[in-house]
Amino acid sequence: MRTIEWLETPEGGAIVLLDQRLLPLRSQEIVIDSIAELIVAIKNLSVRGAPALGVTGALGVALILVEQVRKNWSQEKRDEEIEHLRNARPTAVNLAWGVAQVTPLLLSESPQINFEQVLAAAQELAKEDESANHAMGKLGADFLLKTLGDRSLTILTHCNTGTLATTAWGTALGVIRELHSRGKITEVFVDETRPLLQGSRLTAFELHTYAIPYRILPDGAAATAIISGLIDAALIGADRIARNGDSANKIGSLGVALAAHAAKIPFLVVAPESTVDRNTLSGAEIEIEFRGDEEVVSFAGVAIAPPGSKTYNPAFDITPASYITGIVTEKKIYFPQQGEVL
Amino acid sequence: MRTIEWLETPEGGAIVLLDQRLLPLRSQEIVIDSIAELIVAIKNLSVRGAPALGVTGALGVALILVEQVRKNWSQEKRDEEIEHLRNARPTAVNLAWGVAQVTPLLLSESPQINFEQVLAAAQELAKEDESANHAMGKLGADFLLKTLGDRSLTILTHCNTGTLATTAWGTALGVIRELHSRGKITEVFVDETRPLLQGSRLTAFELHTYAIPYRILPDGAAATAIISGLIDAALIGADRIARNGDSANKIGSLGVALAAHAAKIPFLVVAPESTVDRNTLSGAEIEIEFRGDEEVVSFAGVAIAPPGSKTYNPAFDITPASYITGIVTEKKIYFPQQGEVL
Repeated sequence: MRTIEWLETPEGGAIVLLDQRLLPLRSQEIVIDSIAELIVAIKNLSVRGAPALGVTGALGVALILVEQVRKNWSQEKRDEEIEHLRNARPTAVNLAWGVAQVTPLLLSESPQINFEQVLAAAQELAKEDESANHAMGKLGADFLLKTLGDRSLTILTHCNTGTLATTAWGTALGVIRELHSRGKITEVFVDETRPLLQGSRLTAFELHTYAIPYRILPDGAAATAIISGLIDAALIGADRIARNGDSANKIGSLGVALAAHAAKIPFLVVAPESTVDRNTLSGAEIEIEFRGDEEVVSFAGVAIAPPGSKTYNPAFDITPASYITGIVTEKKIYFPQQGEVL
Repeated sequence: MRTIEWLETPEGGAIVLLDQRLLPLRSQEIVIDSIAELIVAIKNLSVRGAPALGVTGALGVALILVEQVRKNWSQEKRDEEIEHLRNARPTAVNLAWGVAQVTPLLLSESPQINFEQVLAAAQELAKEDESANHAMGKLGADFLLKTLGDRSLTILTHCNTGTLATTAWGTALGVIRELHSRGKITEVFVDETRPLLQGSRLTAFELHTYAIPYRILPDGAAATAIISGLIDAALIGADRIARNGDSANKIGSLGVALAAHAAKIPFLVVAPESTVDRNTLSGAEIEIEFRGDEEVVSFAGVAIAPPGSKTYNPAFDITPASYITGIVTEKKIYFPQQGEVL
């Protein structure tokens, strides 16, 4: 299972994505050879997940350079397209971060030379993402087994933070996979994660593939699962983490945090350092992406609400640092409840 | 719009239900002339909502008596069928309550005479339910306008508590309708209420019909709507209220309560006295109904999870009294946070 890869082609190269909108019904790759198509794929969530979007940002710049060569674009046109890519989704900081990792390499007058530099750097980022994920997995698993005792755990998670959200392994799901590799997972409770069902479609698909026991629950059932004592810890990813520890993540995360706080179980945010935005002081400064009504009012072409219904459909919510037990990155665990800034 | 009604037929009578599984796509009535069919309709949620189930319980006994006449059942067979009806769904106390309201009338050897008594009493219950709803609506609306100031409000609600959940008007939605009749509703935020979408299918359908402004949100978005200050108060119904105020209601209610508590906005439970079960001392004694995997793993015949996925699918959760600002019945408002028992 690979989320995103570079494909060499006679035309100079393309990006191959596993189309996450079709899982688990169909496992289908799409080959993207223009920045316009890539931006559509980002907006419609064919590719999603903060770390995966970081690599997508970097590979996207490589794709722009291929298109620049092919279509003889000016440097101004190239830079405009890079701006479009950077802003394709507002909340996830990793997309802009991935772009920013490679744009300093645009030093040559020759798009071809720039392309070679950028592609090498983007592929290096993907490798680093994978090893960062493994480091987070170990840190998070060590912390939970130390805090909760060296025993098998039942973990609740929200949205998808596995291989499909990264380039490999996973962040919150990486901690779960690490725990499972140590024989310490009893079961994973997977929030279905409405409206787009990244939990029941993607996380369940991954756990099924890895033979890790799981069950799927409606998002509204997470609070009672936690409050009634079924869950040892709740783990989520993040799309942007402010300097004070406030964390933006998939809509529904805040509700999990409130329940974990009330039940006094660990609530961990697991994300790479690239998700930490130290220019954002607190969650109040994070722009939240709102998405269209159709995600909520219809399903599989069937209307599930009266025609013309309006919706409230933020893609993310912000969990205040005060509800977060720890933020696990590849470097360390931050403890924002104890006033630690990142 | 009538949820449930008695229909006179040449065979002695039948129950007419508006099939709530098909709304809002189709508004279709089903005519039920046997207790076996009625129990199926209760279990598959063609009819649901605590107060509506109360009337269904009473009318169901009338239906059993019609069937007793037609099929020449013994009194033992009659009583067995009454037991089946009483236990068709375990959490909602109103079904058993409705049965208990009419069984003391089974005094005659003649099923026909018993039938006439029971039917009259069941129809009286339906009338009382409607006037109780209006009384709750007034009490709840008065309380909110007194507490929050005499201004237009944005209210969040979960599941369906309107005409479709009662015999007319509604409980929590009855308060909202009362506020709207006074010109005091800015907008209603309607939790979609997975897995069966009673919010987006039924509550939105009712609000659309009544021309009350609303928007639908994924259940996971309720916490951020509340915490970010968009909501003035959250109102839900109940399926069983324990003596200490702990309230069982549709799965997802507890999450709304946790968010309302954190945001310090009023969280009201609105239900008739018949939902208060004074024999149940606390929520710990309330049996929670679990429902099948298929409600979570597929939608409109489309698989939304890997085949064979297990689920955690409780139909209800329990909100502890400590998170409930007030419990509004037709009689009064109870304040369990202040230690009041019901």
